[in-house]
Amino acid sequence: MDKLNVLIHINENEKWKVALGNISNLLNDAGDENVDVVVIANGYAVYGYADSEKVSPMEQLAVRGVKFIACRNSLSNMCQEGVACLKEELMPSFITIVPAGITEIAKRQHDGYAYIKP
Amino acid sequence: MDKLNVLIHINENEKWKVALGNISNLLNDAGDENVDVVVIANGYAVYGYADSEKVSPMEQLAVRGVKFIACRNSLSNMCQEGVACLKEELMPSFITIVPAGITEIAKRQHDGYAYIKP
Amino acid sequence: MDKLNVLIHINENEKWKVALGNISNLLNDAGDENVDVVVIANGYAVYGYADSEKVSPMEQLAVRGVKFIACRNSLSNMCQEGVACLKEELMPSFITIVPAGITEIAKRQHDGYAYIKP
Repeated sequence: MDKLNVLIHINENEKWKVALGNISNLLNDAGDENVDVVVIANGYAVYGYADSEKVSPMEQLAVRGVKFIACRNSLSNMCQEGVACLKEELMPSFITIVPAGITEIAKRQHDGYAYIKP
Repeated sequence: MDKLNVLIHINENEKWKVALGNISNLLNDAGDENVDVVVIANGYAVYGYADSEKVSPMEQLAVRGVKFIACRNSLSNMCQEGVACLKEELMPSFITIVPAGITEIAKRQHDGYAYIKP
Repeated sequence: MDKLNVLIHINENEKWKVALGNISNLLNDAGDENVDVVVIANGYAVYGYADSEKVSPMEQLAVRGVKFIACRNSLSNMCQEGVACLKEELMPSFITIVPAGITEIAKRQHDGYAYIKP
């Protein structure tokens, strides 16, 4: 069976709990080996990657095959706005950083990923 | 002409008014016979299915061919959190319950449904 | 190379800043000539088209090829609700008005546009 390719878009930090719960439900329902889940965080949601309470369940999902992506534009904008500066080299190793999350979201859909915004 | 397949995703209870208005506009604009609309509610939006003020306009749309789906994971989570327990057998008959709404959302897109989040 | 077709859906007026920033990032990252971006505003987001602070950056993006669409249903609903009445003939010339934004969103996806909701 072909894998079910799913893209989860999150751009608000307060939506992480819902998003991570959705992904867990998806893996449990479809079976880890039957899905390919990519999470793309931009905007303020990138701060979730610096929040240990959120990083812990993310890591558990990463072990199950979920990919986590952060938008570099968002990281640098947030830093310039004085909200917080997250150093890329200090971020958890399971996170991949892309130049522009928005381009990644568009490209993944053209590659056949279903788009879901929790 | 092929039908226009549309998936409406709703995960916040306060978005029902907008979502139902959007669907009504879609049917009126495209013609009931030219669209296939499926509404998938997960998260707190499942409570809309127990709210008579919302169920009434839903029923009118169901008569026009719109399908309404509820996520069982969401129903049981909300019950465990002590917010409210909706008994499946007491829910309106036009509502279909699926094990995991998130899987349904992904599968429908792979089956050609356009995703819209009101 | 085929262009990257992207549909930006906005239905809340307060999301314009994020949406316009996302589009700017997308053009800068992918290159103006490599993307085809369409913005479809319905619900209260149509008011953004009457807000000079928002219209100015929109115009700059329109010059770079971004298309902006407004939903006529939303315009007339907002007028009937007494919130504000925007006269179509007075709206900026770079904006196209369609009968129902929701139909346009569905059709564009079936035409191959990636859906993104900022």
